[in-house]
Amino acid sequence: MSQPETPSRRRLLSRLTATAAAALLPAGRDNMAQAATGTGAMGDYNTDVVVIGGGYSGLACARALVAAGKQVLLLEARDRVGGRCFNINLPSPYGQYTVEGGAEFIGPTQDRMYSLVQQLGLKTFPAYNTGKQINYIGGKRTTYSGVLPWTGLYSTAEIGIAMLRLDDMAKTVPLDAPWNASKAIQWDNQSAQTWMDTNLLSADAKSLLRLAILALLSVEPHDISMLYLLFYIHSGGGLTSLLSTAGGAQQDRIVGGSQSIALGMARELGTRILYNSPVRKVKQDGYGIEVAGDGFTVRAQHAVMAMSPWMASRLAYEPFDGPLQYRMQMMQRVPMGSIWKVHCVYDKPFWRDDGLCGQVTSDAYLTKLVFDNTPPEAGAPGVLMGFIDGQD
Amino acid sequence: MSQPETPSRRRLLSRLTATAAAALLPAGRDNMAQAATGTGAMGDYNTDVVVIGGGYSGLACARALVAAGKQVLLLEARDRVGGRCFNINLPSPYGQYTVEGGAEFIGPTQDRMYSLVQQLGLKTFPAYNTGKQINYIGGKRTTYSGVLPWTGLYSTAEIGIAMLRLDDMAKTVPLDAPWNASKAIQWDNQSAQTWMDTNLLSADAKSLLRLAILALLSVEPHDISMLYLLFYIHSGGGLTSLLSTAGGAQQDRIVGGSQSIALGMARELGTRILYNSPVRKVKQDGYGIEVAGDGFTVRAQHAVMAMSPWMASRLAYEPFDGPLQYRMQMMQRVPMGSIWKVHCVYDKPFWRDDGLCGQVTSDAYLTKLVFDNTPPEAGAPGVLMGFIDGQD
Repeated sequence: MSQPETPSRRRLLSRLTATAAAALLPAGRDNMAQAATGTGAMGDYNTDVVVIGGGYSGLACARALVAAGKQVLLLEARDRVGGRCFNINLPSPYGQYTVEGGAEFIGPTQDRMYSLVQQLGLKTFPAYNTGKQINYIGGKRTTYSGVLPWTGLYSTAEIGIAMLRLDDMAKTVPLDAPWNASKAIQWDNQSAQTWMDTNLLSADAKSLLRLAILALLSVEPHDISMLYLLFYIHSGGGLTSLLSTAGGAQQDRIVGGSQSIALGMARELGTRILYNSPVRKVKQDGYGIEVAGDGFTVRAQHAVMAMSPWMASRLAYEPFDGPLQYRMQMMQRVPMGSIWKVHCVYDKPFWRDDGLCGQVTSDAYLTKLVFDNTPPEAGAPGVLMGFIDGQD
Repeated sequence: MSQPETPSRRRLLSRLTATAAAALLPAGRDNMAQAATGTGAMGDYNTDVVVIGGGYSGLACARALVAAGKQVLLLEARDRVGGRCFNINLPSPYGQYTVEGGAEFIGPTQDRMYSLVQQLGLKTFPAYNTGKQINYIGGKRTTYSGVLPWTGLYSTAEIGIAMLRLDDMAKTVPLDAPWNASKAIQWDNQSAQTWMDTNLLSADAKSLLRLAILALLSVEPHDISMLYLLFYIHSGGGLTSLLSTAGGAQQDRIVGGSQSIALGMARELGTRILYNSPVRKVKQDGYGIEVAGDGFTVRAQHAVMAMSPWMASRLAYEPFDGPLQYRMQMMQRVPMGSIWKVHCVYDKPFWRDDGLCGQVTSDAYLTKLVFDNTPPEAGAPGVLMGFIDGQD
């Protein structure tokens, strides 16, 4: 059973990665476990702050504003909250089990997300990580443990050294102002692909680093600047941490599915969220902000755009003045990534008995990265989940 | 007298360059010579073909469709046609003279544009090109003739050789399918800046090539892929042709201003053009196309999106299916350039008496490229026009 055309990202979004590349494809709605439907905003509203977008950043922002005693309205274009995170039920006869159609993992350094999980009364569990991984590259199947497969002495050494170099370079990129890195201009002038072509010799090493970039950002290495890649690596605490399961960014999953965090925040916000309410226009005047969509208007003192930059660039703005023009130039240069997730459901996670953890790296076929995505509940079927990224 | 915040491009757009980077800044309307205002589309319309966008490609398309006997409606968001071309009157006491706030030059290879000029009863005149150019680089002022300033033996040789190499490489890029060039992947993987950093040694050569790229595309060399630059060079018949005045892309101007071509086409199309009618949504169903904006709907058999890719990406589409998703990924990766034009008006074009043609290349101050933009009519004042491009 496959679930094509479902967007996702590997990690829940922390504050530092909120502008990272994101998935474009629309959610398949048939198997959505938790959709909060409504008729959408109608008529005129007044509030202190209007938040546009019901993904994780919009929800967390609205929640903090409510805690600070502000009147808040959150406008969400879809019929559900959670953005890139959404739960899907497995098909019959496993309809009571949930897997993630979108982003699902959390790990060390994402302290705020762990704290949110706790506040909402949710629980995490470790992603299955017992046994060996499979590497299928150049037509050869090998098994391995740790973060890097063995692809031969030279290429393994090369990719290992490259990862250390990238981590060292990443540390010189300030997270609050990446443009102040001493080599910022040089790195922003070149694509990550150019860096790979200049610094890696073996095809296996290039193939593995491409896989890592696809896994982290869902874009091809020629699609991002070296500076952005280094910023992202730094924000995640280094490549090894970003690519690891235990001790890394894929360490934990959420019982009941990752969207449960969004649904928990939405429950708290209640009727402050207006679903099915895509915003078309944001207007600023001497009195504050006016946000308008099809058949509704919200007046507020402040507006928060909690959307990916490219999505935000699709709205109409008034006045379209200097600072916004600069920002529009930026927003045109942050393309969204592209990713599908495929779930295969088996009666049992048979690979576990063979001493395999279910993780696969590959340079062949469509799914170049595979994880064991079996639900944590007793009696759940075995689920393998594969990523199809970038131009694949 | 200066006209800040007016967008432009160096050349009128031919078919081959219709997707090139474009100006983002809105038109200053105060000095606009020719604005056709109207109340905008209202209610429901039916037509064979709806054309979205009243720039040169949209107007030419609508004109061809009318000639083929089709019913056509053209929807334009602004109160005027012409897109990146618009005429502005000089301030008093020269109010009867027109210069271009936007694109203005045409030259050899743009046969269709010359033919259009003739069909519309308009006239061209040669851009002023008598006398020497000034090169102000590294704090030193020199004068020169031809396409390249003398910047020292090494850098002049280097930039000359680089231009020949670029022209040779460009010829291997098929204009109808640039992705089929034998080195397409390699060139698309790297920015033009990376190519410059790898292949040019002298700062003067790098500075001049950056200037050339800014002049052609209004974007920084790190903002475009090498493949796109080579495609563009090929489409314009080579770098020397693209950068030249006589015999090149800046050879001729239009009497009365370049927007006159658009205004001529608009006159022919008459009430088929609906002004002040920004389109918000394009919907396709079994019966054809439905295009909707604020308070209006147009039903048609076909729709033509005659907008720059990024602008087109800001509309809402239904259904948002596979092919459109791929196209959206592309449209997110074609950012628009950034350019201002500044006009300085003098009682007489005094530089001509000094044996200068009014053209300046420079690496200092904001306007790195200057042209003589004096109107052709007798008694017109002297006008110098400067470009401010990219991040400057």
